[in-house]
Amino acid sequence: MTQQMEIICVGYELLIGKILNTNAQWMAKRATSLGITVKRITVVGDDVDEIANAVKEALQRKPKFIITTGGLGPTFDDKTLEGIAKALNRKLEVNNKALAMVKERYEAYVKEGKIEKAELTSARVKMATLPEGAEPLPNPRGTAPGVQIIIDGTFLIALPGVPSEMEAIFEQSISPLLKKEAEGNMFFETSIYAEGIPESTLAPLIDQAMHDNPYVYIKSHPKGVEKKPHIELHISTTAKDSKIARERLEKTIAQLTELVQKSGGKIKVPKK
Amino acid sequence: MTQQMEIICVGYELLIGKILNTNAQWMAKRATSLGITVKRITVVGDDVDEIANAVKEALQRKPKFIITTGGLGPTFDDKTLEGIAKALNRKLEVNNKALAMVKERYEAYVKEGKIEKAELTSARVKMATLPEGAEPLPNPRGTAPGVQIIIDGTFLIALPGVPSEMEAIFEQSISPLLKKEAEGNMFFETSIYAEGIPESTLAPLIDQAMHDNPYVYIKSHPKGVEKKPHIELHISTTAKDSKIARERLEKTIAQLTELVQKSGGKIKVPKK
Repeated sequence: MTQQMEIICVGYELLIGKILNTNAQWMAKRATSLGITVKRITVVGDDVDEIANAVKEALQRKPKFIITTGGLGPTFDDKTLEGIAKALNRKLEVNNKALAMVKERYEAYVKEGKIEKAELTSARVKMATLPEGAEPLPNPRGTAPGVQIIIDGTFLIALPGVPSEMEAIFEQSISPLLKKEAEGNMFFETSIYAEGIPESTLAPLIDQAMHDNPYVYIKSHPKGVEKKPHIELHISTTAKDSKIARERLEKTIAQLTELVQKSGGKIKVPKK
Repeated sequence: MTQQMEIICVGYELLIGKILNTNAQWMAKRATSLGITVKRITVVGDDVDEIANAVKEALQRKPKFIITTGGLGPTFDDKTLEGIAKALNRKLEVNNKALAMVKERYEAYVKEGKIEKAELTSARVKMATLPEGAEPLPNPRGTAPGVQIIIDGTFLIALPGVPSEMEAIFEQSISPLLKKEAEGNMFFETSIYAEGIPESTLAPLIDQAMHDNPYVYIKSHPKGVEKKPHIELHISTTAKDSKIARERLEKTIAQLTELVQKSGGKIKVPKK
């Protein structure tokens, strides 16, 4: 049983289809590779109640991690921390550690000649105004710190929506945490291709291979119409040991190869 | 008040970050352009309980539309209809209309020489096994029909995950429905760019413009670091009349231009 994560993406621009949700993919991929199971991704708009509801619902499902992205900046429509505070029924307060981070960043910008004044305007103080009991996470690439709150054993973490900032905080503060909580579990995956067999014939064979290999997950992805069936079989497992993982994947591939051959098809294993 | 939609994407490949969720973006963009407000996007894995929970939760929020994508195919891990049936506490049964659609499609494949036999294997019948009371929607690009069920005034619609099939059913059966339910509402948007003003200074100005233009939504997207501030302001509104929409957007742009100039910045309006 691996540790579970939920991702909550905040942003009107995602709900109108203005942008692709690359943040969710990046984070899901990264967390998965570190041995964590992503159970749900939720996208809501820049609205305090919508954010609060999404956070409350996620907390009720008790994953080990809830990571939000978006809505931490200085503008009026950056509402994630207000939403989290509402979900937790906590007050927002200026966090001195966060304020020092924001101040340091603006002072560095002045030194580098990027801006003229480092004064802490109310918009800048907003980025250091966190729910009570929160811990700021340094942002190596921007002004808004990440925010971490631990609730009944769940790490609730808010990250900015700008990809470079989200990724930088993730790598610096979240990856080590995930790795530790994953307790040595790692994710292993490979893809093979079934040819000359329609998806509807392949279906029960996959079913059997999944049944016989309980720690392995197989998902089929048809690549083209049924005329020249070419189906990707993505095979994955989570294990603490790469040798065990490799053995599981190899055993599954061998069984699938045999089953597919018996049904008149062929398995192609791409060369590494 | 526009009609609301939720999108539920089903697929393990989304939760491990194997693929980008282009379906959610396409559908969100399309629905928005037709005058519908997308309120939430949820991604869950190929798991009956996860799907059932996501559907039940969405139904409780009573949007006009819930559209799922993914998990309608013939394989064992296509579990969306089972999840919907569980959410609704309905039985799954072979739907004769859906079965005729599936059969017709396979017979056409035989005629076109794409496959040898049109026989209705259990995997193929699975695609026509729908929750009681469901209405199949023709799939012009593949074998699995879409599925529509009306629950207390909410249209619950399941579409395949293969983008070409999802889009084809959407355009043929869903777009006309959305247009009708949008009651003439349309979405209008434009982007202008603020230069020479930091996001933290711009924030209260946007706040004021949003306050003075209640039907207009403005969202700022910083495009680069604070050194050479260049901020996209995405301005949008939903209206029944393009003249009204244009007037709203123009009034907002005029006010923002004035406010930003007073603060030492500049607004650039891209030429159409």
